[in-house]
Amino acid sequence: MNSDELWQRYCKYHRSYPELGFSLDISRIRFSDDFLENMQGGITAAFEAMSSLEAGEIANPDEGRMVGHYWLRKPELAPSADVTDAINSENKKIKEFAAKIHQGTLKPQRHDRFEHVLIIGIGGSALGPQLVSEALWHKDNPMSLHFVDNTDPDGIAKTLSKLGDSLEKTLAIIVSKSGGTVETRNGSLEVAHAFKARGLDYGPHAVAVTCEGSKLDAQSKSENWLEQIYMWDWVGGRTSIFAAVGLLPAALQGLDIDAFLEGGKMMDELTRTPDSERNPAALMAMMWYAAGNGKGEKDMVVLPYKDRLMLFSKYLQQLVMESLGKEKDLDGKVVNQGLAVYGNKGSTDQHAYVQQLRDGLNNFFVTFVEVLSDYTADAENVSNLEVEEGITSGDYLSGFFLGTRRALYEGGRDSMTITLDALNANSLGALIALYDRTVGFYASLVNVNAYHQPGVEAGKKAATQVIDLQKKLLHSLQSEKKKGTATELAVLIGNPEEAETAFKILQHLSSNSGRGIERSGEGPTAAQFRYRG
Amino acid sequence: MNSDELWQRYCKYHRSYPELGFSLDISRIRFSDDFLENMQGGITAAFEAMSSLEAGEIANPDEGRMVGHYWLRKPELAPSADVTDAINSENKKIKEFAAKIHQGTLKPQRHDRFEHVLIIGIGGSALGPQLVSEALWHKDNPMSLHFVDNTDPDGIAKTLSKLGDSLEKTLAIIVSKSGGTVETRNGSLEVAHAFKARGLDYGPHAVAVTCEGSKLDAQSKSENWLEQIYMWDWVGGRTSIFAAVGLLPAALQGLDIDAFLEGGKMMDELTRTPDSERNPAALMAMMWYAAGNGKGEKDMVVLPYKDRLMLFSKYLQQLVMESLGKEKDLDGKVVNQGLAVYGNKGSTDQHAYVQQLRDGLNNFFVTFVEVLSDYTADAENVSNLEVEEGITSGDYLSGFFLGTRRALYEGGRDSMTITLDALNANSLGALIALYDRTVGFYASLVNVNAYHQPGVEAGKKAATQVIDLQKKLLHSLQSEKKKGTATELAVLIGNPEEAETAFKILQHLSSNSGRGIERSGEGPTAAQFRYRG
Repeated sequence: MNSDELWQRYCKYHRSYPELGFSLDISRIRFSDDFLENMQGGITAAFEAMSSLEAGEIANPDEGRMVGHYWLRKPELAPSADVTDAINSENKKIKEFAAKIHQGTLKPQRHDRFEHVLIIGIGGSALGPQLVSEALWHKDNPMSLHFVDNTDPDGIAKTLSKLGDSLEKTLAIIVSKSGGTVETRNGSLEVAHAFKARGLDYGPHAVAVTCEGSKLDAQSKSENWLEQIYMWDWVGGRTSIFAAVGLLPAALQGLDIDAFLEGGKMMDELTRTPDSERNPAALMAMMWYAAGNGKGEKDMVVLPYKDRLMLFSKYLQQLVMESLGKEKDLDGKVVNQGLAVYGNKGSTDQHAYVQQLRDGLNNFFVTFVEVLSDYTADAENVSNLEVEEGITSGDYLSGFFLGTRRALYEGGRDSMTITLDALNANSLGALIALYDRTVGFYASLVNVNAYHQPGVEAGKKAATQVIDLQKKLLHSLQSEKKKGTATELAVLIGNPEEAETAFKILQHLSSNSGRGIERSGEGPTAAQFRYRG
Repeated sequence: MNSDELWQRYCKYHRSYPELGFSLDISRIRFSDDFLENMQGGITAAFEAMSSLEAGEIANPDEGRMVGHYWLRKPELAPSADVTDAINSENKKIKEFAAKIHQGTLKPQRHDRFEHVLIIGIGGSALGPQLVSEALWHKDNPMSLHFVDNTDPDGIAKTLSKLGDSLEKTLAIIVSKSGGTVETRNGSLEVAHAFKARGLDYGPHAVAVTCEGSKLDAQSKSENWLEQIYMWDWVGGRTSIFAAVGLLPAALQGLDIDAFLEGGKMMDELTRTPDSERNPAALMAMMWYAAGNGKGEKDMVVLPYKDRLMLFSKYLQQLVMESLGKEKDLDGKVVNQGLAVYGNKGSTDQHAYVQQLRDGLNNFFVTFVEVLSDYTADAENVSNLEVEEGITSGDYLSGFFLGTRRALYEGGRDSMTITLDALNANSLGALIALYDRTVGFYASLVNVNAYHQPGVEAGKKAATQVIDLQKKLLHSLQSEKKKGTATELAVLIGNPEEAETAFKILQHLSSNSGRGIERSGEGPTAAQFRYRG
C-alpha cells in the first residue's frame, strides 16, 4: 500500500470516542476488506452470549456460576435486587472504612495513624491493585501500598525489611475469596508472625477481603480483625479489580474510585453497541482473531508508551491468558486455545526486544497504548522542558512510538493502537473494562469458557502432593533414623515411583540449616540423606 | 515414559557443578537420544567462534568491532595489555569513587552525604542495574537506587516526586556510550532541570559512564561533573552489566562487585569446557535449538521461583531477543531469526498465565530457576515459620515449582531447570554469565551475529524523521497562521505523503496546553489545527 492508500485505510479504520477520551486504530492489522463482514455471525453470537451473561445466566458452566463483573460497574444491572444492594453496600463500606483509616478513627495499636497498606494476595488479588497503584500514584496519597504476592519466605522478609519500623503503622489486607489459597494463607501467617515479633496483635492491623462465610471470614472474626469486606463467587480473580480487591487498596491510597468505576461503566455502555463496526471491544476481538487466525498463532505484545502503565501488560497477561488458555472448548473438544501476552513499555523496550520485533521472527502483533497528555493532572515536577528548540521529552516519546509503528508495518508486522486523551482513574477504568469485554467476545469467537481456570486448580493439587510426600519423607527419616539415597528413601516410604521428587525435596531441605536433613555426596544417584536430629 | 524411565532420564541429563553451587536439568526437554551427537558439528563450530571472539577477533563484523564482555570478568584474557590495564583501572576507579561517596569525601552541594543514586540510562544501561539491585538488596545498603529509563516526562516527574527533597542527596549516573542516546540525553536534561529548580548545580551531583572522548565525556568535563568512568566500544549495552554500567551502581549500593565478577569468571571457565555434554551453556544452547527447532518456534518462558529474581526474565528478554532477533544470518541470507522471552516469577504466575501454559497453546518451553536456600545470607526477618506442622512457606514454594514442572511435562510441555544453591553476588554473576555464553553459542548454531542491533538504529532514525516533521509543521503553522486539516497541512509543508503522521503529531500537540496548537473537530479527516500564538 502506498502512503495515500494507507492514510485512506487509517481514516476508514480509525474510531474516535470523544465522550470517553479514547480512540482505536486497527488499520495496521492486515485484514481483508470482507473480513469484518465474514465475522458477523461469530460476533453476533458473542453479543448474545454477553447479553445472557450480563443478565445473570450461568456463564461459567464448569463451575456452575454466574459471571458478574459488569454488575460491579453498574449495580442496577445485576439480576436481583439482593445483588445490587450487596454491591452498593460493600462499596459504601469500603469508602467508610477508608475514611476511618485516613481520619485515624481506626488506628494502629501503637500509633495514631496508619500510613502503609500491605496487600497479601496472589494473582488478580495483587496484579490489579499493583497496576492501579502505580498508574495513579500521586505524592499526596495518604498511604503507600506494598505487596506480599507469593509464598517466597525471602521475598516476604525483603518486603518486611523494606517496611522496617513502619510495619507498626501498616494495615494488612488479606485477600482470598475462600481463604483456601495457600500462598495467601502463608503470607498472612508470615506477616502475623512479624507483627507478633514486635509485640503487636494482628487483629488491629488486619482487614479481610473475602466471601461471606468463608474460612477467612471466620478467622478474621474470631481474631477480631478490623473489618470484613465481601466479594462474591460470581467475580473471578482476574476481573476483581472493580470489586473490593481493587477498590479497597485504591480507596486507601486516596484514589477516586467513583471515577474509576464510572470509566468502567462508560466503556461497558460503549461496548454494548450492537453495531460491531462501532463497538471497540468487538473490533479488538476480531483483530485478535485476524492476527492469530483464531488460534493464537501470534503473540500479543502490549506496548504502552507511558511509564505509569508498565504493569498493564502483566495485568493483561493474566486476564487474557488465564481466560483464553484452555484445553477444551465449550463443546468439550480439545482445542488448546490461548493467546500469549508480553510487553513492558515504550520507548524503553526499543532498546531491548524491539530489535527482534522489527527484524526477527514475525510471530506477534503489537498493541500500542498511546496517551496524548504528557503529564497526568496535578502532576508535580512538570517541566515542559524543551530538550531541543520547540521539542519536549514527550515529543520524543511520541516520535519513538510513531517511528516504531511505521517501521513495524513496513516490515510486515501488524499492530493496533489504543489512544487515551489522558491517564486518570476514569480512563484507566475504561481501558480495563475494554479488555474485559474484548476477552469475553474473543472467547465466544473461539468457543471457550473464559471464566474458569481448571489448570490453576490442578496446580494446587500437584503442589499438595509434593507437600504430602515431604511429610512422609520427613516422618520416615525421623522415625527410622536411616540414611539413604533418594531412590532408597522413596522405596522406604512406599513410593518407589517418586525417587525424583524425593531427591528434589531432600535437596531443598538439606540446603536449609535448621530443617534437620543432612546430605552427603552429590547428584541424584550418589547423594545420601539422613535426619540429623 | 513411566516414572522409572523418567528418573533414569533425569539422572542421565542432570549436571551438577558443586564448585559453582549450581546444577542444570535438561531431562524435561523432549530431545531424542542421538540429538546431542547430531549437534556436535554445530557446537564445535560455536566453540571455535567463541574462542576467536575471546581472542579479540572482530566478532561483530557489521560494526567492525571486537566483542569483549568476557574480558571484563578476567582482564588478563584481553587481547592486549592496554585493554587489560584499562579494565583494571576502571574497576579500581569505581571502587575508589564509591568509597569516596560512602565516606562523604565527595558530598552533595547542600548536605553531608549522598543517600540516593539516580541512574539515567535505557536498555542494558537500566535493565542490568535494576536486576542486580533488586536481587541483592539488603536493608543495610548505604544507598538506594532509582531509575530514569525512558523519555516519558510524566514518568520522570513521578520518579522526581518519589525522591522529593531527597533529590538534594542524590547522585545522578548518566549512562551512554556515545552520549547520543536521545532518551538518556532527555532524561539527563530533565533531571538537571530539577536540580536547577532547587537552586543546585548539576555537576556536583553527576557522574558519567561513557566512552572516553564521547560527547557525554566532553559535556561532563566542561560541566565539572564529579567523575567520568569509562566503557569501551567492544562492550555491548546488553552485556555491559560487568562493566561500569552494572558495577558502579552495584558498588554504590554497597554490593560485593568482586564476588559478582568472580561468579561470572567461574562460569566462564566452566562454559569453556570443550566437552559439550559437560558444558552447561552448550547444553542450554542445544536445548533452545531442540525446543524451537532452531527457528525459535517456541517462546521461552522464564520462571524463577524467587521474588528477588523477578526482573531476570526482563533482563533476558533484552539479552536474548536483541542478540538473536535478526533479519539476516552471517551470510546475508534473510532468516528472521529470534527467540521470544517472557515470564515473571513462580509461584505467583501460577495464578496468572500458567493456566494457559498447562492447558492451552503449546507454543513455549519453560526455564525454571530454583534457589535451594530459602533465605539469602544475612537476611533480616528470617522466620523459618512452620505454616503447617513441619512445613514452611519455602516448602510450598518448592512444592509449587515441582508440581508445575511435573504437570507441564505430563501435558506434553517441555521445561528445563537451573538450580542455584543460594542467591548472592557470586551466583548471580554466574547465572548472567551462563546466559551470555548460551546466547553466543546459540547464535553460532543458527548463524547470526549476536552482537549488533540494526533495528535499534533504524528505530532511532524513524523517530528523528517524526521529530523533523513536527518541526516543519510547527514552523509552518506559526509562520503562515493557517488553519487546516492534517491532509492540508501535510500538503502545505510539502509532505503530502505524511498526512497520517501529521495528524498524530498535531493531535499530540493539541492535547497539551502550552504547545500553542489548537484543535477543532474530531477524527483524522475532520479535525482542524491552527497555531493559537
